[in-house]
Amino acid sequence: MIYLDNAATTLKKPDQVIDAVVNAMRTQGNASRGAHNATLSASRVVYDARVKIAKFFNFDTPSNVIFACNSTEALNIAINGTIKEGDKVISTDTEHNSVLRPLYHLQKTKNIDLQFVNADLSGVLDLNQFERICDNKTKVVVVNHISNLTGNVNDIKTISKIAHNVGAILIVDGSQSAGTMLVDVKDLGIDIYCFTGHKGLFGPQGTGGLLVKEGVEVEAFKRGGSGVKTYEEDQPNEYPTRLEAGTLNSHGIAGLSAAIDFINEIGVENIHKKERELTEYFYNEVIKIEGIKIYGDFSSHAAIVSLNVKDYDSGEVSDALSNDYGIATRPGAHCAPRLHIALGTKYQGAVRFSFSYFTTKEELDAAINALKVIAS
Amino acid sequence: MIYLDNAATTLKKPDQVIDAVVNAMRTQGNASRGAHNATLSASRVVYDARVKIAKFFNFDTPSNVIFACNSTEALNIAINGTIKEGDKVISTDTEHNSVLRPLYHLQKTKNIDLQFVNADLSGVLDLNQFERICDNKTKVVVVNHISNLTGNVNDIKTISKIAHNVGAILIVDGSQSAGTMLVDVKDLGIDIYCFTGHKGLFGPQGTGGLLVKEGVEVEAFKRGGSGVKTYEEDQPNEYPTRLEAGTLNSHGIAGLSAAIDFINEIGVENIHKKERELTEYFYNEVIKIEGIKIYGDFSSHAAIVSLNVKDYDSGEVSDALSNDYGIATRPGAHCAPRLHIALGTKYQGAVRFSFSYFTTKEELDAAINALKVIAS
Repeated sequence: MIYLDNAATTLKKPDQVIDAVVNAMRTQGNASRGAHNATLSASRVVYDARVKIAKFFNFDTPSNVIFACNSTEALNIAINGTIKEGDKVISTDTEHNSVLRPLYHLQKTKNIDLQFVNADLSGVLDLNQFERICDNKTKVVVVNHISNLTGNVNDIKTISKIAHNVGAILIVDGSQSAGTMLVDVKDLGIDIYCFTGHKGLFGPQGTGGLLVKEGVEVEAFKRGGSGVKTYEEDQPNEYPTRLEAGTLNSHGIAGLSAAIDFINEIGVENIHKKERELTEYFYNEVIKIEGIKIYGDFSSHAAIVSLNVKDYDSGEVSDALSNDYGIATRPGAHCAPRLHIALGTKYQGAVRFSFSYFTTKEELDAAINALKVIAS
Repeated sequence: MIYLDNAATTLKKPDQVIDAVVNAMRTQGNASRGAHNATLSASRVVYDARVKIAKFFNFDTPSNVIFACNSTEALNIAINGTIKEGDKVISTDTEHNSVLRPLYHLQKTKNIDLQFVNADLSGVLDLNQFERICDNKTKVVVVNHISNLTGNVNDIKTISKIAHNVGAILIVDGSQSAGTMLVDVKDLGIDIYCFTGHKGLFGPQGTGGLLVKEGVEVEAFKRGGSGVKTYEEDQPNEYPTRLEAGTLNSHGIAGLSAAIDFINEIGVENIHKKERELTEYFYNEVIKIEGIKIYGDFSSHAAIVSLNVKDYDSGEVSDALSNDYGIATRPGAHCAPRLHIALGTKYQGAVRFSFSYFTTKEELDAAINALKVIAS
């Protein structure tokens, strides 16, 4: 199988990630519960992972690195924990349902004033519109870093300046950016950065989290055992405990920690460079094929190319790629409803090719050739 | 290290569990996202796990087996998803903070009428009191199956009858019962059973879930991508999707599935019998030691023995066991505040010894001898 669905999950994990999970499953107790060797070993692994993740994203406060089971959970924590009754909230057309559905729910239950920044036919956000609608009533801005559909990189630095000018906090969905490009949360001006472990970071499924900038208040989402302050009726107030009820997935976190070591060994910018080269190569070959339409703005882009072949249903094209050529892609709507409407692909969907550091030029050639046949 | 902290997490996992996780990390894509081989492989593993878990608990509806990252999350989903503004809710003194804290929060935010069934000095619930306070205003009853502090098994069948007599639904915290005893949710009359994967079930951390009886409505807790019905603003209504936003931990679920195979090979009743024998042996030896006080009712009991030595601080005893004898136990309050108050151990805490199928008589002898020295 030629696996070109890395934006869904990276299939190839570095051996050291798997080894770390195995070692954790053989040796680690329950982190932060008691003080014997097995629990201390788990606690150390978890603490080291917080420190490593903080450093990786140039984030100052390891104790504000909160673990969650995926990016969706991280976003639910961030969105539900910061937005209050009646708040004005701005989000964008490029969002995934992991942002949209929590926001739509708050529109119904907390009467929030929810507004969206439009995307154009290339999926590029209208930042002038954003600046116009972002007034001092705006409390929270939620935006994704990289669209999981087009691969466009949103200009977080500019968005942050506009949001901070009016005193709003900025929540960024980093599902597609963590591990695939240099993410400096301080330089970008991000208040809460949500990430998943199993995509660009090459970690195990069941991992992810959020970085909550010091001073930003996020209300507890889940409540439960914390291993400390048992007699308090409320979830303990300090991070990370406030947002981490119950037993952590220290097995998965051990793998995520090893995954970050792997990325650091290569250098995240080298990974980005290689993925960028693969993407440009693929894009430049595919754009020549008659009958193929590619979506997105390739001036600032991740390792994602979404396209359609003529007016063929995207599911049928993806099935043909899988069945006839052994090429794994993802068709359909990609949980990005507003962006499909902006792109005019609500009914057709799109076939998404997404690459990783482990993707080879030969694999891309096979995909390019398959597309030529399908389009002809 | 002699590991006697299995109620926190089982340290020894069967090899086949670790093998299954490794295999999953090498082959599985993102479950229910697209239709190529890697994603289908993940989807099959997840579906098989639902079927297997349903059968294991004698539960009829595999699609209502909902995965969560631990028991705390499952309980948060169940409690927040069923209890409405102003509801009368009954819980008990034997609960863990994963039940208590969500309930206390609803007391503040949804004005629920929260009442507790008292436990006596042995941690046994007063079911006569429960019957008295459980009237037809009662909407939800939340009770744990086995206390994580005393190891007492609550009489779920009787509790269920009383709850169902008044039309209330019964949520059971199965954190300590799943995998350690035969749990027949149909026979016991449980409406929602919450479990974790990493304790008695011998699965990886980051796994767990809830079984929602057909017809029981649980509102979505997290919202996000579902791989289906992208254009619906609400989380899709059908189980399991309603309660499972975002990428599942299919790596962990593969391990949990293998863990259930392991338990089925031995037989859960054989596991229970062996654990019961270990517990009785330990109890009968330790009760003879002067200065040791054991908590709990040993007529119906799990593989947990909590005790104190004279008036020594439980943390100091546990540290001595760990440092001087290499014996891992858990001291302190065990996230069970109401029960410690009932037992009169609020300040002393208790030293908890908890066993698994892999615990040996030799390990227990070492612990018994260590306690003799510490008590003398």
